[in-house]
Amino acid sequence: MSDLAAPHLLALTAYEPGKPEDELRRELGIDDVVKLASNENPYGPSPRAVEALRAGSLQLERYPDPRGHALREALAGHHGVTAEQLCLGNGSNELIDLICRVFGGRGDHAVFGHPSFPCYRIGSVAQELRFTAVPLRGDLRWNVDDLLDAVTPDTKLLFVSNPNNPTGSYIPKRELGRLLRSLPDRVLAVIDEAYVEYADAEDFAAATELRDARERLAILRTFSKAYGLAALRVGYVIGTAELVFDLNRLRAPFNVGTLGQVAAKAALGDQPHLRRSVEATVRERQRLGEALVATGLRIAPSQGNFVLVDVQRAGRAVYEDLLREGVIVRAMAAPLESWIRVTVGKPEENERFLHALERVLKGSRV
Amino acid sequence: MSDLAAPHLLALTAYEPGKPEDELRRELGIDDVVKLASNENPYGPSPRAVEALRAGSLQLERYPDPRGHALREALAGHHGVTAEQLCLGNGSNELIDLICRVFGGRGDHAVFGHPSFPCYRIGSVAQELRFTAVPLRGDLRWNVDDLLDAVTPDTKLLFVSNPNNPTGSYIPKRELGRLLRSLPDRVLAVIDEAYVEYADAEDFAAATELRDARERLAILRTFSKAYGLAALRVGYVIGTAELVFDLNRLRAPFNVGTLGQVAAKAALGDQPHLRRSVEATVRERQRLGEALVATGLRIAPSQGNFVLVDVQRAGRAVYEDLLREGVIVRAMAAPLESWIRVTVGKPEENERFLHALERVLKGSRV
Repeated sequence: MSDLAAPHLLALTAYEPGKPEDELRRELGIDDVVKLASNENPYGPSPRAVEALRAGSLQLERYPDPRGHALREALAGHHGVTAEQLCLGNGSNELIDLICRVFGGRGDHAVFGHPSFPCYRIGSVAQELRFTAVPLRGDLRWNVDDLLDAVTPDTKLLFVSNPNNPTGSYIPKRELGRLLRSLPDRVLAVIDEAYVEYADAEDFAAATELRDARERLAILRTFSKAYGLAALRVGYVIGTAELVFDLNRLRAPFNVGTLGQVAAKAALGDQPHLRRSVEATVRERQRLGEALVATGLRIAPSQGNFVLVDVQRAGRAVYEDLLREGVIVRAMAAPLESWIRVTVGKPEENERFLHALERVLKGSRV
Repeated sequence: MSDLAAPHLLALTAYEPGKPEDELRRELGIDDVVKLASNENPYGPSPRAVEALRAGSLQLERYPDPRGHALREALAGHHGVTAEQLCLGNGSNELIDLICRVFGGRGDHAVFGHPSFPCYRIGSVAQELRFTAVPLRGDLRWNVDDLLDAVTPDTKLLFVSNPNNPTGSYIPKRELGRLLRSLPDRVLAVIDEAYVEYADAEDFAAATELRDARERLAILRTFSKAYGLAALRVGYVIGTAELVFDLNRLRAPFNVGTLGQVAAKAALGDQPHLRRSVEATVRERQRLGEALVATGLRIAPSQGNFVLVDVQRAGRAVYEDLLREGVIVRAMAAPLESWIRVTVGKPEENERFLHALERVLKGSRV
């Protein structure tokens, strides 16, 4: 059968998600598992979202609203745009793929950072785009000139994760503005702001504040991180009405389920809950970082809800050892072989991780 | 912006779903709306599925199980296959697109019936496949020889909706076996059985009974129709482990949400509920068909949960008139301009439709 698959897909390394807790429980027979692997929000969604799902009238037998009317209207109000400027996706993951399919013609070129979210590369490979993965420099920060230098006359797409997964680094407001203004007109700039709610640096700005700087701009947001709704798969694009019109040519009409639409709208309406869980996470991010530095490890300063730690030996081995301690983190691929990424959990989860890491590092050689 | 979209997509007529009830309420200010447009199951899902969603421990902040372990194991038991032979999708809609992307290389050719489910054509266009839409003959039945005649040396995919949407017609067991055995080895036969639970003709057979007839076979099933879970977007492919492995190269890891996985597993476990709602629908299909014939209209004998009716004038106008009566059905494109498709609803919904249709037809000229 394999000889039937399109040849360019044979090279594709499928995205490897964080190990689900249940899987570890099954595999190792460990009951008490802490998952700090997928940058989920341990405080969960707004109780209003849970409430909305328990309302009796959800009509599970009916197809979802294909236009996501109520959620898009709520998002339009939240962002000060029109509903026509919003496109919903089955997580922002699906939207990255959709953007590659709609705007990436064959032979076109894409630019993105490395290391960054793997879906930009997967989407490009799937669409047979040529691409340049621009290495982040030694300090793991973005360099806007490096990105601009990678742009060729064939470049149609540029993806930036800001703050960046997995490094936690960001492009400051001035630099982001410069990037958006400097790109050639034909390039669609895709700014993936999955972690934007956790960014608190003074010189950070969401691309939503810089929409005047560029027409060809797609801003990606998600309900899977700070809004605590990863289970329900809701992401969205903010762009021009023309961009959204083009995405809708190929978007499947029922790509976002009813419960996702309902819960996301309710969660959006509870900004105080969002603020509280973000504040708790930012506090713990600081504390966790300081504790790691105090043990002599290097960390990347993070604007996300995760911390990248240089464990100064094979990160994969440390990851495996932590699994046996019941703690799931994420091992990193090249060039971060000596790093692991840990999600900022609740205080007790972070303690559990810190103690487990201490035991693991003591038991292993550098 | 539009000049950025890939040129082959500009020709794409996006799939037009049935009008959502809320939209009609908004547009016409009608409160009492009956939706018989999307072949949904009016009896809803098993109470066990609803129950499963109300269980407290769903952890909405966690990503779904990317491998869909529990649901795939349950499906494996149900179908007598291994979990490795099953691939879950965000509705079977996503899986049709995924099949086109994974197995349809550029320049390849696809074959499907016409009129049939529009997603085979959309998936082919999106992937720039050449295709042949094989017209169903005047009696709206499948003709296996017509399908086989359309196969060229470049054909890689053949899609059959069985029973067929929107005609309700089917390929009898003997003929389906002949088709599966006669196709050249390189062709992947995709048998879309979205409506299989409603088929009761003596000479009907699900492709699951004919898996020995062909290795390159993908059988599509969905929880959106008879299982009453359209809101949650769960479909699946049954195939060889090799086929599923190839689909997983490109399948997004979190394409099926947690609540969909949980509810589908619970619904699968309640076969008596499924049987009861299928029986009620099949009874009403018979009654509705007879009532339509009694008024002098022609219908296509249906094995699905819908009936295609020749209204002997512009179907689009009858559709619009029915909207004003608060009844949503589906108008058909060429060559079915004089037909409408009506979902078999509950007895009172079907009565409402019959009376509304009578009024509409009286008020309009042939």
